[in-house]
Amino acid sequence: MPLVRISLMQGREEGFGKQVGEVVYQAMTKTMNVPARDHFQVITEHDDAHLIYDPLYLEIPRTHGVVFIQITLNEGRTVEVKKAFYQVVAENLHRQLGVRLEDVFISLVEVKKENWSFGNGIAQYAQ
Amino acid sequence: MPLVRISLMQGREEGFGKQVGEVVYQAMTKTMNVPARDHFQVITEHDDAHLIYDPLYLEIPRTHGVVFIQITLNEGRTVEVKKAFYQVVAENLHRQLGVRLEDVFISLVEVKKENWSFGNGIAQYAQ
Amino acid sequence: MPLVRISLMQGREEGFGKQVGEVVYQAMTKTMNVPARDHFQVITEHDDAHLIYDPLYLEIPRTHGVVFIQITLNEGRTVEVKKAFYQVVAENLHRQLGVRLEDVFISLVEVKKENWSFGNGIAQYAQ
Repeated sequence: MPLVRISLMQGREEGFGKQVGEVVYQAMTKTMNVPARDHFQVITEHDDAHLIYDPLYLEIPRTHGVVFIQITLNEGRTVEVKKAFYQVVAENLHRQLGVRLEDVFISLVEVKKENWSFGNGIAQYAQ
Repeated sequence: MPLVRISLMQGREEGFGKQVGEVVYQAMTKTMNVPARDHFQVITEHDDAHLIYDPLYLEIPRTHGVVFIQITLNEGRTVEVKKAFYQVVAENLHRQLGVRLEDVFISLVEVKKENWSFGNGIAQYAQ
Repeated sequence: MPLVRISLMQGREEGFGKQVGEVVYQAMTKTMNVPARDHFQVITEHDDAHLIYDPLYLEIPRTHGVVFIQITLNEGRTVEVKKAFYQVVAENLHRQLGVRLEDVFISLVEVKKENWSFGNGIAQYAQ
């Protein structure tokens, strides 16, 4: 169910965006009870005239390595679950791909379970 | 009001994405009471390192012909209306453009009616 | 906190999209109580087969100069605040960048305050 949009600066090594997406997917399955194989993402790369970030909002120093992760997912997860997700994403992006912890920007958009169709014109989660 | 984002694999015949959008628009007017001319879309094409789908989630076999359709629209439509929309989109994409039924992925994001301005700096739906 | 997505037609002068984003950011700080430096945007440019608008919905005449602005932000702003924001964005885009008032399309998506992480894997607004 989650639809993940990842936006990052262009010029990274080939496949980097997809690797970021894989880490996000693994973190969702680990912390947010997202089922295995529920993996749908759109990854885009931009130059610095088109990907805008503040280098110091909330006193967090950000660089061109910033990664925006916006996820549309079903409503109802607790604050604790969301916090666990943020932590695992940031730590694993850092550990596995060298992304700075400060450069991980995450936004969640919650929707109702009947707001999805995964194919065949059916609202699979509304059954 | 709906703002439609369509994401698909690059390399299709020219104009294919726009045709997909037209089918989505027609289905919205037919099933979701969207007014005529309420037609605003962003269509993007990606290579397979940037458009990620699972080829078998929920036992639905997907291919590179997958089409992601994410629609921001006003809240309040019933589950039955949403189901009718999914069915019409999938059937018409299949019938008119040869898209496989299994390749139609839809996500709805609902918002309040005062969350739109269609021009002139006015909240037309909040009047 | 707001994550702003701006979509416009390609072929404008270089830096135009970023200037649009700057106007949107200034309007958010002025009317919606968005903190200074809370400035995160993704700006994309499209040809007219990929950016679709109706040239007359709600009797508002739109042109290829249309600018779509979709903002994910915290819930809770009043209708009056949103109206003020729409007006300031449209007027300032017109005055500062020559965008036609009719060409300013805005969509807001509201989320809970715990739905953000601005870095370090922490839900800064949920504290």
